[in-house]
Amino acid sequence: MATLCRPAVSVPEHVITLEETLELARTLHADHPQLPLALRLIENTGVRTRHIVQPIEETLRHPGFEERNKLYEAEAKARVPAVVQRALDDAEMLTTDIDVIIYVSCTGFMMPSLTAWLINAMDFRSDTRQTPIAQLGCAAGGAAINRAHDFCTAYPDANALIVACEFCSLCYQPTDLGVGSLLSNGLFGDGVAAAVVRGRGGTGIRLERNGSYLIPKTEDWIAYDVRATGFHFVLDKRVPATMEPLAPALRNLASEHGWNASDLDFYIVHAGGPRILDDLSRFLDVPPEAFRFSRATLTEYGNIASAVVLDALRRLFEAGGAEPKARGLLAGFGPGITAEMALGRWRHSKERA
Amino acid sequence: MATLCRPAVSVPEHVITLEETLELARTLHADHPQLPLALRLIENTGVRTRHIVQPIEETLRHPGFEERNKLYEAEAKARVPAVVQRALDDAEMLTTDIDVIIYVSCTGFMMPSLTAWLINAMDFRSDTRQTPIAQLGCAAGGAAINRAHDFCTAYPDANALIVACEFCSLCYQPTDLGVGSLLSNGLFGDGVAAAVVRGRGGTGIRLERNGSYLIPKTEDWIAYDVRATGFHFVLDKRVPATMEPLAPALRNLASEHGWNASDLDFYIVHAGGPRILDDLSRFLDVPPEAFRFSRATLTEYGNIASAVVLDALRRLFEAGGAEPKARGLLAGFGPGITAEMALGRWRHSKERA
Repeated sequence: MATLCRPAVSVPEHVITLEETLELARTLHADHPQLPLALRLIENTGVRTRHIVQPIEETLRHPGFEERNKLYEAEAKARVPAVVQRALDDAEMLTTDIDVIIYVSCTGFMMPSLTAWLINAMDFRSDTRQTPIAQLGCAAGGAAINRAHDFCTAYPDANALIVACEFCSLCYQPTDLGVGSLLSNGLFGDGVAAAVVRGRGGTGIRLERNGSYLIPKTEDWIAYDVRATGFHFVLDKRVPATMEPLAPALRNLASEHGWNASDLDFYIVHAGGPRILDDLSRFLDVPPEAFRFSRATLTEYGNIASAVVLDALRRLFEAGGAEPKARGLLAGFGPGITAEMALGRWRHSKERA
Repeated sequence: MATLCRPAVSVPEHVITLEETLELARTLHADHPQLPLALRLIENTGVRTRHIVQPIEETLRHPGFEERNKLYEAEAKARVPAVVQRALDDAEMLTTDIDVIIYVSCTGFMMPSLTAWLINAMDFRSDTRQTPIAQLGCAAGGAAINRAHDFCTAYPDANALIVACEFCSLCYQPTDLGVGSLLSNGLFGDGVAAAVVRGRGGTGIRLERNGSYLIPKTEDWIAYDVRATGFHFVLDKRVPATMEPLAPALRNLASEHGWNASDLDFYIVHAGGPRILDDLSRFLDVPPEAFRFSRATLTEYGNIASAVVLDALRRLFEAGGAEPKARGLLAGFGPGITAEMALGRWRHSKERA
């Protein structure tokens, strides 16, 4: 059975603190009628630091979509291979063991996607399948895990590499002045994550079931407005309240598996913002501490889009993992509005498959 | 076992003939030093007619990336549902029978992808998985078939819907004046295709094996240059010769399956251009008529990107299909340079699964 192994994560070297973010907002938007609201929303995110690929002065410039996208490509090429290598090493795998690369990223656009370059640059096999996904946003971390799980279910000896590469700071749009945009400017961060899903062996989460759920008629709640200046992130103010309709989907998935979503041993979910974690705690009836790994990602890195779930999972590993057979839930949430959910049990490589 | 059912295909109502294309090239590029070469290359494509979403006068205008992309979205919403409904009807499936939608399209960019809208607009189930792929270009038709096959292998009772939506005319870039661009302006067309892959039952190609192959170090041979004006298609002049390195990959896949790639009953491949078909015939040692369905797509519709393989397959169905158990090969080719290949046997729904 497929095992999601220890993720490797890297965040860039340029750090911006909450205080700096607030000060910038005060300076850049001194005359904004809703500045106090925006400042309050940013403070409430609980994001203390974010890591970005360029110094903040550069980040605030918009050199055009073309230059931004070239920067995305250069930064991805500079940063992804080391993270992939660590994920492979941690899973005790070689590039030649990998059968499919699922590359998720919504903050830059390349065709061919980075998968082709990665196969060449890191000597993956020429017959490695490529599944690049650019359009699932923050839900794509969960989708990558789930499609890797499906692939290993179809081919039990296969191994999948998941990569989530998100440079949200390259989607900063200085002319977007809605409160949702000002909030986003204080919420999103950059990060690269990778993990191997092994068909056989491995330590981590043995994936047992997955599912998707789309909240009906919400497709314009989280979206990109695609313009000459690039991707403009559109965030509806109803988004923070979406855990109420999504919690039943999580409960249903668990219950189809004979589990109770309120009574699991670990929870690794996308930390889009603080309300998501608070509400999940409430609607799933689990203590807030259950989401400590997701909350730590949000606090230290901000919302790093599809990489959040992999970083939260990394933190579970760093905390020593879980007990053998401990049961857990993973979920990514993003545009659609889509939840990509998975259930699995902690597994040590010494156990029988 | 997964069966790829009859594809439904729709091409837009605005037609441009080879003669009109040549005349336009002569008028627009009268002073171009390589005009004679470009005209010869366009004539050699064998493309007689193409169908485009707007009248040619509108197509030649570039109203900006934002407006182009909005047009992509509007046209996709206007044209995709009817094609999807026909594909479902032909496969004797309801929207509620579908477990995953694999939507491939490289000629517009939406987040969320059209999958979210489709689920809402056509009443697919809320738990339908979404796999949108924008970065595999013309290879994505093959990739969609193969990922649907993998999904049905993992979940034998599942059904997948594949959609390929390509409006190549919306990527026309009037300022691109290289010979590769002039050729592309005479080669690509618009089209929408859909097909169901049924886990059980169905008439069509029972999918038995699939594989990918990336030609090493060719990732910049077919690419998008992403700019404020949108996607600029970059085509290296070495691309037409890529069947020489790809034919061995097709042979290997067949031979792993105990088949001989030179001795199959049908061939459904991406018709990127005429040389691809001529060379495949030569390197696989099969008669040119073997590629008649792909050639008909190229002649009547032009290169409709990821939709080509589905349209060529539709033509096989319209020709009466194949004999029971007839063995065939499908392949999409595109950026990477990537081949997405599949092997299967013709199956009538009356046969046992």
